[in-house]
Amino acid sequence: MESLSKNKIKWIRSLGLKKNRDAENLFIVEGEKMVLELIDLWPKNIELICTTDLNFSTKLPSYTTDEKTMRSISSLKTPNKLLAVVKKPQLKLKQEASFIVVLDDIQDPGNMGTILRTCDWFNVDQIVCSTNTVDVFNTKVIQSSMGSIFRTPVTYCDLSVFLEDTELPVYGALLEGENIYKQQTERKGIIILGNEGKGISEKIQTYITQAIHIPRFGGAESLNVSIAAGIILSEFCREN
Amino acid sequence: MESLSKNKIKWIRSLGLKKNRDAENLFIVEGEKMVLELIDLWPKNIELICTTDLNFSTKLPSYTTDEKTMRSISSLKTPNKLLAVVKKPQLKLKQEASFIVVLDDIQDPGNMGTILRTCDWFNVDQIVCSTNTVDVFNTKVIQSSMGSIFRTPVTYCDLSVFLEDTELPVYGALLEGENIYKQQTERKGIIILGNEGKGISEKIQTYITQAIHIPRFGGAESLNVSIAAGIILSEFCREN
Repeated sequence: MESLSKNKIKWIRSLGLKKNRDAENLFIVEGEKMVLELIDLWPKNIELICTTDLNFSTKLPSYTTDEKTMRSISSLKTPNKLLAVVKKPQLKLKQEASFIVVLDDIQDPGNMGTILRTCDWFNVDQIVCSTNTVDVFNTKVIQSSMGSIFRTPVTYCDLSVFLEDTELPVYGALLEGENIYKQQTERKGIIILGNEGKGISEKIQTYITQAIHIPRFGGAESLNVSIAAGIILSEFCREN
Repeated sequence: MESLSKNKIKWIRSLGLKKNRDAENLFIVEGEKMVLELIDLWPKNIELICTTDLNFSTKLPSYTTDEKTMRSISSLKTPNKLLAVVKKPQLKLKQEASFIVVLDDIQDPGNMGTILRTCDWFNVDQIVCSTNTVDVFNTKVIQSSMGSIFRTPVTYCDLSVFLEDTELPVYGALLEGENIYKQQTERKGIIILGNEGKGISEKIQTYITQAIHIPRFGGAESLNVSIAAGIILSEFCREN
């Protein structure tokens, strides 16, 4: 394997910024488990792989580097021995999707990645994000999605246009909503999750056809949005 | 209000390290909402309050500072106008607790804080942590708990000793566990949550009397531990 050049090091570092990822249509995946999954599921998207492991073998373009350089290009506290630069897949809307999660301005990359992983677990067909939702190719989103980004289709659009068009029931958690434990739910419909601080925006609330809420038993004022997502999806998937 | 001295600035910064928090028995709370809740719920624990707001008024010891200094003592990306140095409460075990969450080596501060907030929402009586679980007074734990630290009692101990003694049913998520949706559950018992990478340790698994699992519908290999906590607690609290 060739050694990673100074130019390539500089170029990989530049992909830490969204504007550079967007301009080059690339993103970064780190960690042995995720890179191996990537090689398995999206081999054609891999631009290059860097490794500190001299025994690592692949037919894909790959370069060796030392641990110090790996630390300098990695976004992780404890860099792993594998890092890949990946071509972004096309973000598209599946026409036949009937179990959909809509994200209305989710800002925290950790929440976004965890929501992706949870949607993958519950086999959500599609995630539709508002244009102000955090970039799904943000390194922290990718890392906390634990590979779910390779399986669950994500797209960005004007939510009003998307919701205007749908014939599916539209669910959203609102204070005045119905107790979710008492609703007859099935794996069908659109579930809207709102911004961490502001909740679902007023404009988007108007598209909700079934307002729901998770009953509170204690003192916390609210649930983290990814926890709410997990509980709501669990309720939709469990046999009632 | 007096202005924050250089010595105090240095001292507050030093509390970013666990060894200093432990030595002084103090921790830090940031943000307007949480500091106001703190003043309301734990006024006697407040050592001092720093603020950039000259109009802020309290009878508790408080100091003004400028935004630059606030940025230098804050752990937040966007520092807030209020920061408090707080005496740690005594971590204790409620004798009458019957709905308990046990954390077996949870490492990530964000997960720990989110679990605390979720336990508070579902009115868990007590959280019992293994001695290797992340420090509950870690700044990131405090911030992501959103004030739940003031309401839900937390303690650290040798889990074997604690679990050996209990007469409550002990639940734990294991691959071979029973489908949680089919279990008759009530708000009673001990729920064990395992480490992010390794799950529940072998030794602690031996105390489980009711192995459970959350059914998987899609491709993700596992759920984030705080999401699993949310779904399990929701199942225990919903009317079956």
